[in-house]
Amino acid sequence: MLIGRAHALTSVLAHFATAPDDRYFEDYVSGHVYELGTITVSEAEIIDFARQFDPQYFHVDPEKARASRFGGVIASGWHTASLVMKIYVDRYLSHVAGMASPGVDEIRWPNPVRPGDVLSVRVTVLEARVSRTKPDRGIIRGKIEAFNQRGELAMSMIGLSIIGRRPGA
Amino acid sequence: MLIGRAHALTSVLAHFATAPDDRYFEDYVSGHVYELGTITVSEAEIIDFARQFDPQYFHVDPEKARASRFGGVIASGWHTASLVMKIYVDRYLSHVAGMASPGVDEIRWPNPVRPGDVLSVRVTVLEARVSRTKPDRGIIRGKIEAFNQRGELAMSMIGLSIIGRRPGA
Repeated sequence: MLIGRAHALTSVLAHFATAPDDRYFEDYVSGHVYELGTITVSEAEIIDFARQFDPQYFHVDPEKARASRFGGVIASGWHTASLVMKIYVDRYLSHVAGMASPGVDEIRWPNPVRPGDVLSVRVTVLEARVSRTKPDRGIIRGKIEAFNQRGELAMSMIGLSIIGRRPGA
Repeated sequence: MLIGRAHALTSVLAHFATAPDDRYFEDYVSGHVYELGTITVSEAEIIDFARQFDPQYFHVDPEKARASRFGGVIASGWHTASLVMKIYVDRYLSHVAGMASPGVDEIRWPNPVRPGDVLSVRVTVLEARVSRTKPDRGIIRGKIEAFNQRGELAMSMIGLSIIGRRPGA
């Protein structure tokens, strides 16, 4: 349903008017698309993360992974999500008015992430509304996407963020 | 919808008849609930993960976190998800027939995870069906939940797993 709404929106490539340390709910505009930049990941990082959190052979064992249908190690989806979160925190979220997120919907990993891939991350604001119960903050629903260097979608998800309103706004 | 179905299922606390290295699609039974055991997390681990992937102050700065409405550092939701993934891989997924997951739905973090918390992880199989297009494997949809030592839900999500069928089955 929300994805349907996103398609109905007129999407506009946008830049924030404010830096993250002066960014508030009012700075997120429905229909705006923010390009956050790129992230990369090495084989050593993929294996290190997966040994700790997702030790399936296609994430941790280069030899077995090479012989499998994956043709080599691929990143854990949780590693990709965490890398995307880093750039989302650094460049998208407010550093002064951000609050914890209640959840994330529809995480998809349609194409594997391989060592050396360069992922471009962008966020489309699907909805931005003031909280009904706590009028000092707003709820922003965004579609977060990471594309690899061939333009293939590696990961997408719908994230909910709670951001305080600008004081005095 | 799927959650509604889960409520309609008769849930049965179950144990796998097979070890992860002899586990196949047929071993996952709709309505069965598997208790996977517990995980813990220290403040140092919370801060280390968050510095890499989610450097919001309430995850990385004990002093600022203490003065905030959180009352101390809380784990990044991605850290909690990754810790849950580890025990899910070790004790739930097949080690011989597991394939990569296409996605995860409805991640929720209704209560914060704090240093020293002990999380009990369980999976309820909501649906297990043979793939229509690739009959050598099945798709298992499970509700994954992590409760803290006070019985409060810290995280839940709906995960999709693709598991090969038992050879000759």
